[in-house]
Amino acid sequence: MPAIISDSPTAGLQVKESNVDVLIVGAGPSGYMAAIWFAKLGINARIIDKRGTKVFTGQADGLQPRALEVFNSFGFAHRPAKEASVGFESCYYEPDPNGNIHKVARKVEGVVGISRFNGSVIHQGRIEQWFTDAIDEFSNNTLKVERPIIPESLVVDESKIQDQSAYPITVTVKKLSDEDATPEQFGHKLENGLYRQFAGDQEREFTHPPESREIIHAKYVLGTDGAHSWVRKQLGIVPEGESTDYIWGVLDIVPITNLPDIRKRCAIHSASNGSIMIIPRECDLVRFYIQLKETEREPEVGSSAGTQSRVDRSKITPEAILDRARKILHPYTLDVAETHWFTGYQIGQRVAPKFEKWERVFIAGDACHTHSPKAGQGMNISMMDTFNLAWKIAHVVQGKASPAILQTYEQERRQVAKDLIDYDFKLSRLFSGKPGTGEGTISTNEFRDFIDKGSAFTTGCTVDYDASVLVSKPMREDSSIKYASPLATQLFIGMRFPDNRLVMQCDGRPWFIHDKMPSDGRWRLLCFCGDFKSSPALAAQLVAVGDYFSSPKSFITKYTPTDERVDSVIELILVHASDANNVEWDDFPLAFRPRDRL
Amino acid sequence: MPAIISDSPTAGLQVKESNVDVLIVGAGPSGYMAAIWFAKLGINARIIDKRGTKVFTGQADGLQPRALEVFNSFGFAHRPAKEASVGFESCYYEPDPNGNIHKVARKVEGVVGISRFNGSVIHQGRIEQWFTDAIDEFSNNTLKVERPIIPESLVVDESKIQDQSAYPITVTVKKLSDEDATPEQFGHKLENGLYRQFAGDQEREFTHPPESREIIHAKYVLGTDGAHSWVRKQLGIVPEGESTDYIWGVLDIVPITNLPDIRKRCAIHSASNGSIMIIPRECDLVRFYIQLKETEREPEVGSSAGTQSRVDRSKITPEAILDRARKILHPYTLDVAETHWFTGYQIGQRVAPKFEKWERVFIAGDACHTHSPKAGQGMNISMMDTFNLAWKIAHVVQGKASPAILQTYEQERRQVAKDLIDYDFKLSRLFSGKPGTGEGTISTNEFRDFIDKGSAFTTGCTVDYDASVLVSKPMREDSSIKYASPLATQLFIGMRFPDNRLVMQCDGRPWFIHDKMPSDGRWRLLCFCGDFKSSPALAAQLVAVGDYFSSPKSFITKYTPTDERVDSVIELILVHASDANNVEWDDFPLAFRPRDRL
Repeated sequence: MPAIISDSPTAGLQVKESNVDVLIVGAGPSGYMAAIWFAKLGINARIIDKRGTKVFTGQADGLQPRALEVFNSFGFAHRPAKEASVGFESCYYEPDPNGNIHKVARKVEGVVGISRFNGSVIHQGRIEQWFTDAIDEFSNNTLKVERPIIPESLVVDESKIQDQSAYPITVTVKKLSDEDATPEQFGHKLENGLYRQFAGDQEREFTHPPESREIIHAKYVLGTDGAHSWVRKQLGIVPEGESTDYIWGVLDIVPITNLPDIRKRCAIHSASNGSIMIIPRECDLVRFYIQLKETEREPEVGSSAGTQSRVDRSKITPEAILDRARKILHPYTLDVAETHWFTGYQIGQRVAPKFEKWERVFIAGDACHTHSPKAGQGMNISMMDTFNLAWKIAHVVQGKASPAILQTYEQERRQVAKDLIDYDFKLSRLFSGKPGTGEGTISTNEFRDFIDKGSAFTTGCTVDYDASVLVSKPMREDSSIKYASPLATQLFIGMRFPDNRLVMQCDGRPWFIHDKMPSDGRWRLLCFCGDFKSSPALAAQLVAVGDYFSSPKSFITKYTPTDERVDSVIELILVHASDANNVEWDDFPLAFRPRDRL
Repeated sequence: MPAIISDSPTAGLQVKESNVDVLIVGAGPSGYMAAIWFAKLGINARIIDKRGTKVFTGQADGLQPRALEVFNSFGFAHRPAKEASVGFESCYYEPDPNGNIHKVARKVEGVVGISRFNGSVIHQGRIEQWFTDAIDEFSNNTLKVERPIIPESLVVDESKIQDQSAYPITVTVKKLSDEDATPEQFGHKLENGLYRQFAGDQEREFTHPPESREIIHAKYVLGTDGAHSWVRKQLGIVPEGESTDYIWGVLDIVPITNLPDIRKRCAIHSASNGSIMIIPRECDLVRFYIQLKETEREPEVGSSAGTQSRVDRSKITPEAILDRARKILHPYTLDVAETHWFTGYQIGQRVAPKFEKWERVFIAGDACHTHSPKAGQGMNISMMDTFNLAWKIAHVVQGKASPAILQTYEQERRQVAKDLIDYDFKLSRLFSGKPGTGEGTISTNEFRDFIDKGSAFTTGCTVDYDASVLVSKPMREDSSIKYASPLATQLFIGMRFPDNRLVMQCDGRPWFIHDKMPSDGRWRLLCFCGDFKSSPALAAQLVAVGDYFSSPKSFITKYTPTDERVDSVIELILVHASDANNVEWDDFPLAFRPRDRL
C-alpha cells in the first residue's frame, strides 16, 4: 500500500510500502541458496541485487562435492554433471635442475568414496541460472531477483524483536538508474572482476537519481551482499584479519598449448617466476591462477585493516598476466584462442566476529569471510552458510520451530569460516612461496602433502557441528574428535549423513540415500533395525517402535496436522540388514509402510 | 503465400500455401522422435496432430533400455531417471492347490549389464512433454506441434520424385473446430482410451466446418498417425494379421492392497479367473492389465480383417475391470484411492507389408505394426522406427547422403516389427492361457521361461540389422548369427554400439561411451589401437592411420567443409588399451587430438 512518508530519505515522495517475511540483500550464490529454500518451503521472501543483470562470465567457478550434494537435494545436480568440467586427476609440476618445469606427480582428485560427486567447475553465471530455473519452478515464477535495487537504510525496532508476528526491521531501498547499475570496468573493454577486488576500492557512488524508492518491513533480513557488505556495515561488524603481500591474476581463456595436462588440474611451481594453478573449465575454457610479481604494487599507503599496501590496478591486464604465465610455464608454450574474463587479487584472510544481530539480521557468504580463491571454497562455503540458515528461518516463520534454533547459525558457520581461513592461510603460503630448501623457500613435498591431507576438508563433506539445541551430543574439548552414538557407530552426530546406496524394499530399486532425503523442509527419522529376521529381540524392538510411532502419543502424531499426510512433517525411514529374499512387505510394522496417501 | 485454388476441397476459399522439407502427420511418440531429429539437425519440418491437446494420462507407458539410451543421446535421460518408475524386480504368482494365488518366483528385471538403463514406466503425456521441451530447445521454439489439424488429401507428382530440389508431395490439411478436436469418451466421464482401441471403431466423422485450410508442398511426408493411419490408407497399404479372442482391460489406479509386491512388476495367473499383469508407475500409480471374460463380447459380425468378432465397448468400465481384478487376485484385496485412466483391447497382431512408397512417403509406429501392449514394446519400437528414419531423411535433404540410404528404413524396421509380432503372439497366448497340464491349458513354467529368454529382446538392445548400403557385412542365411569384424570381435556390425565405460585420456574422467556419441547428426569413426605403447607394430600403425586422417586425401578432409571444425562431419575417437600412467597426450598423432576449435 502506498504511503506518504515525511522523514528522509523519502521526504515528500510517494513511495511504496510493503511487508515481507524475509528480505535477501544480494543475489550471489549465497543469496540464491537462501532464495531456493524460501521458494521450496513457500516462504514470503524477496531478493534484491544492485547489479542490473546477472553474471555472464568469470567470478567464482568451483563446486565442491558437498555443494553438488545440496544441488542434488534441490533436484538439479544433473546440470553440473552435463555442463561443468568435472575434476578427476591433478598433476604437479616443479622445476628440474635446469630451471624448466616438469611433471613430478599425477594424482586422483578428491577423496575416493566420500561422495558420489566430484568437484566440478563452471562460471558463476551458469550456476546462478540453475538456481533461477529451480526457484522459478518452486515458486511458480513468483520469487524473482529484483534489480538494480540497493538498500539505503536499515532500522530495527528492538521492542518488537521478541514478537514473531511483528515486522521489526524497516529497510528503505531504491531502484537504481541504468547508469548506476553497471559497474565500471576500470578501463578494460573485456568484462572483468577488477572492480570488485582489492579491499578499499569498492565504495561506489551512485550519482543519478533513483527510479523509485520502497519501504520494506521485514521479519528477517539476510545480507548476502559480498565482501563489502552494506548490511554488515549497518550492524557495525568489522571483519578481522589481514592481507598478505601475495598478488595473483586470474585468466579465463581458451588456451593453445603443448602442456600435455591442460585438461587436468595442475599446480605448477617455477624456479623463480612464481606459481600457476590450472583449472580446466566448461567447453574448452581453462582458468589460470597466475602469481604476479610483488613489485607490481604501489608504495605502501596504509589502510584501515593494517599494514598492507595497495595494488596498482592499471598494471593488471590480460596481457601482463599472460606474459607472466608464459615465463612460469617455460619450456611449454601458451597462446590464446579466446579470452573470456580476468581479474587480480591480493591474498588476504578475514572473518567477521559476528554473523548476526538480534537473531533477526544475518550476514552470510563473502560478507562473513574472505580469503584466496584457489582452494575453490568461497562460493561453496557461502552457499552452505545460507543452506544452513534459511530453513531455520523458514521453520521459525512457519511456527514449526522455536527462534532458539537461529543461534546455531553463527555457532556452526563461524567455526567453518575460521577453519577455512586457517586452511587458506597455509595453502596460500605454500602455493605462493618459492620452491627450494633454503631460508625463505617452501618445500614442494610439504605443499603436496598439505593438499593431500586437505582433500577431505575441501570436499565440504567433513564439517562437524558442535553440540547445540539442534545437535544432540556431548560438548567436546577437542573439536577434531567425531562423536557417534553407541547405537549407530558409523553415523557421526553433527556431520552430514553419508550418502550410501541402499536397495528399496518395496521395488528393489537401488538408491543413494540422499535421493530419499530431498531438501523439502521435512524432518527425517532413520531407524536401523539390523537383521531383524534373524533376531527375535530386534524383531520385537521393531514391533515396539512401530507401535509407538503409530500411537496417538508419538511425537510424529503430535506434530503432524490431522489433515496432512502422516509423513508431511517427519518422515520415517527404516533401514534393515536382513536378506531381501526372506523379507516380505508385511513383515514391517504399519508405521513404516503407510498404505495410502493421507 | 496465399493463393486461390479452384479444385475441391478448397474451391473458392483463400487458403495458405507453403513449402516444407518434411511434414509429419501425427504427434505421438514416433512423430515426436522424428521431430526431435529434425529440430536437432536444423531441418525445415512441421508436425501436425488432430488432437486439440497433448495427452495427459494413460496410453503407452513403457520405456525400454534402448529407448532410454536414445533419450540420453538427445540429452534428456535424466528426466525418466527422476520422474518414472524404474523396474528392478519381477514377481510371479500362480494358483496353489486351493486355487489361491501365491508367489512362486522373484527375479531381477531385465538383463544385468546390457545397458546402464533399466526399463522405466510413466504415462505417455509426460514423455511427450520431455520431447516437447527438447524440441523447443533445439529448434529455438520454432518447431511446434500444430493442432488440431488433419490431412484431407495427399497427391504425389511422380515425375518429380527423382528431383531432390522439388516438392513432389502436396498435402491439403484443415484445422478442426474445437468440437471436432475432442474425441468422444464413449459415455464415460473419466478420460479413457476406448475411442482408439478395437479395430474398425476408429472412423471418426468431423461434422463441423474447419477453421481454415492449407496446402503444403513437401519433399517428404511421415505418417506417424497411429493404428488407423490416414497416411497408410492413402498409400493403399493394408496391414496383415489377425485378432485373437483375448480381451484385456487396463486400469491406471492408486491402489490400496495387501498384495505385498504391488511396487514390483507382477505376472499373475489365477486358476480360472484369468491373468493380471501389474506395472508400478510414477508417483503412487499402478497399471493393471486385467484379462476379461471372453463372453463379454458381441456375437460375431465379421470384419474386413477376418473372422474376429467385436467387443461390446459399453461393458468395459472401470468397475467391471476392477471386479475382474479382485477375482483374479483372491485372496489378496484391492481397493482404489484414485482412478486415472482405463481402456480395453482385443489382442491382435498386424504388420504392414510396406512401410513406404516412392521413398518419399513413409509410415512408422502403430501405422506399421499393432500388437498387445503387455511386452511394453509398442511405444519403443515406434520411436525407434523414426529414430532410424529421420536422420536419413535429414541427411538426404541436406545433400550429405544419397537417397539410396532411405531404402534401409523398411528393410531394417519391418524385420524388427515382424520379430516383435512373433514375440507378442507367443507371449499373449502364454499370458492369456489358463494354467494347467491338460488340453487347452498352458504351462506356467513355459511362460516364465519364455519371459526369461525374451528379456534381452525386450530391452531393445539386441536389434541386428542386415547387410545394406549402410551396414557393411556379408549377407546371412541365418539372421540369428551375429557378425563381427575379425579386427573387433566384440563389436557386432549392424547392432547398437555397446555402452561401455572408458576413461578419457585428457582429463581422466570416466564416461559411458554413448555420452560421447550424442545424436547430433555427425558420423563417428572409432579406432582401436590396443596397447600401442607395448607394441611397436601397433604404434607404427597408429602413426600411419593418423597421418592418413591428417592428409588432404583422407575422406574426412574430403567431406568436411574447409570453414567448419575438423570433426563437424566425421568425429574420430581413438580407444587405446595402454596403461594410462605411461601415456602422455603427445603420444597420439595430431589427427586424434585437434588442438584448437576450428
